[in-house]
Amino acid sequence: MEENEKRMVGKQSICFQNKVYVRGIASVVGKLEGDGPLGAYFDIVEEDPMFGGKTWEEAESKMQQLAAEHAINDAGLKKDQIRVLAGGDLLGQLIATTFGIETLQIPFLGLYGACSTMGEALLVTSLLVDGGYAVHAEAITSSHFAGSEKQFRFPLAYGNQRPMAATWTVTGSGAVVLSAKRKGYDVIVSAATIGRVVDYGVKDSMNMGACMAPAACDTICRHFEDFGCQPEDYDAIVTGDLGVVGKEILLALVKEKGYDISKQHMDCGVEIYDSARQGTDSGGSGCGCAAVTLTGYLMRKLSEGSLQKILFVPTGALLSTVSFNEGNSVPGIAHAVVLEHIR
Amino acid sequence: MEENEKRMVGKQSICFQNKVYVRGIASVVGKLEGDGPLGAYFDIVEEDPMFGGKTWEEAESKMQQLAAEHAINDAGLKKDQIRVLAGGDLLGQLIATTFGIETLQIPFLGLYGACSTMGEALLVTSLLVDGGYAVHAEAITSSHFAGSEKQFRFPLAYGNQRPMAATWTVTGSGAVVLSAKRKGYDVIVSAATIGRVVDYGVKDSMNMGACMAPAACDTICRHFEDFGCQPEDYDAIVTGDLGVVGKEILLALVKEKGYDISKQHMDCGVEIYDSARQGTDSGGSGCGCAAVTLTGYLMRKLSEGSLQKILFVPTGALLSTVSFNEGNSVPGIAHAVVLEHIR
Repeated sequence: MEENEKRMVGKQSICFQNKVYVRGIASVVGKLEGDGPLGAYFDIVEEDPMFGGKTWEEAESKMQQLAAEHAINDAGLKKDQIRVLAGGDLLGQLIATTFGIETLQIPFLGLYGACSTMGEALLVTSLLVDGGYAVHAEAITSSHFAGSEKQFRFPLAYGNQRPMAATWTVTGSGAVVLSAKRKGYDVIVSAATIGRVVDYGVKDSMNMGACMAPAACDTICRHFEDFGCQPEDYDAIVTGDLGVVGKEILLALVKEKGYDISKQHMDCGVEIYDSARQGTDSGGSGCGCAAVTLTGYLMRKLSEGSLQKILFVPTGALLSTVSFNEGNSVPGIAHAVVLEHIR
Repeated sequence: MEENEKRMVGKQSICFQNKVYVRGIASVVGKLEGDGPLGAYFDIVEEDPMFGGKTWEEAESKMQQLAAEHAINDAGLKKDQIRVLAGGDLLGQLIATTFGIETLQIPFLGLYGACSTMGEALLVTSLLVDGGYAVHAEAITSSHFAGSEKQFRFPLAYGNQRPMAATWTVTGSGAVVLSAKRKGYDVIVSAATIGRVVDYGVKDSMNMGACMAPAACDTICRHFEDFGCQPEDYDAIVTGDLGVVGKEILLALVKEKGYDISKQHMDCGVEIYDSARQGTDSGGSGCGCAAVTLTGYLMRKLSEGSLQKILFVPTGALLSTVSFNEGNSVPGIAHAVVLEHIR
């Protein structure tokens, strides 16, 4: 039981006791993301927005299947060696994931954390590997611009105007194979903080950054308290998709709590597009935004050692058209995982 | 690592190495369920289908909040002693759960397994307790007849006709507090089998039993193989919501694999209503169906010892109106957990 007791840290954090190695990664994106500042880092850039499918949902499924298989190959494994696959997407009842991964026939845990899903999936798969429930486990998520617009806002053909605070859903799928057996990358997942639902009463579905910033603040500050650490202990503190507007709010909220993360903070939504040139307003969003920025860009920086230790905190807006149209607020959630370079 | 290695059993099963005690339970249901054969077992029967809320979604959230709090009280704990809450519901983006549990402020892992969610939630919370990631963790799920009809089929006011194969979504929420510290009930979760997505190509959303039976068969037979056990090792093998039609299919499919579970099998969907009297066609369904049958009825039988060991296998139909309307099949998934009476 001694090893067990060390796993709980503070109020809501976990310290993994066994090494959880990053063994395989995949980043699959669309054309716009491929044309963005991180374009060169992605494994697969698909020019066809339909990914060879007949519907937007099928497109996302095919993209996710590509990512799942690419990460397994990258790990040097066969699909039947992956003991558990954990993940999800933004679509109602996780259909992008369900239809995307069904041919793999890997035992599956469906997760929903909105755009925080990559954090939740890494957290759950790390638990499985650390606790000895799996030797190899895979975390996956995705989002597709067209499918998300259809699900949450307006059909593309309607051509609605977008306020400047709106973010642009990333067409992308990221997958990570975690393993108890080291191979390939010099990166481990060493700790995690499970987020709470945080609701500041913001009701603007076109300003998701403002909905999610309080949740990111809550998880980041709780992480610092649980581990007794400081922003300086990290080379980067990476939120998922707050965008330009949400980033400002986050820095201010965290400052109120007594921490200054302005030097370490980066937001995947801000990095993934050149908004002025690409017309993506406040930046990127969606499960795929944080996922491909992690698997495409951050993992490589961590593995080569130019980043030594990061706090990855993807942020989710718990929005449904039903709850939104009924006048409800948009609560947020953020899950944090610590990724470290190892020699 | 020795303890760790014992946790993986066969291809997709887990054997918990520490005792995971059932410490608190809650079953909250609507009037129809309260009038059914199991009515006397439920903790709370609410006559108001709106549960004091203004919308069907809010009704389900309020029901889930009631269940979450009841189970925590039943465990003799305060809400800030619950380290993680894991669960979900059928509604798009899990809004019943998000809005239901947000006031509790417990770190939250959102899960989606359709009507298998109680199995997935028990599995994840058992991992957390067994692995030392939490002393107390709570599993929760819910479904609401009116919210589900609105989400998946027709608005109630439309008054559509129902084929005999259709099931009736249970209005109910079940919650379980699992703990490393024994108190209250003489029941543990001892093992689990993580299900795969199984798709036989069935496309009839009014015959969910036929969609889910292949997934139940896959998980049950895999469980037997992984542990080298037989149907006779269980007092009951309990599926979630196959209904009368799906039960027949399951028994036939399992027989093809060389097992006869006809003596042990019971289906929560068949048990929860008196379909002839209550007009519920093929039986009950929904996340709440398996959840309240477990927390209301089965847990008490296990705790008193009239059931010694059961395999609880809630079944989910991975259906979305979008995928369904696009002509896709309805894949299924089923997760199994072993519950045992202890002296």
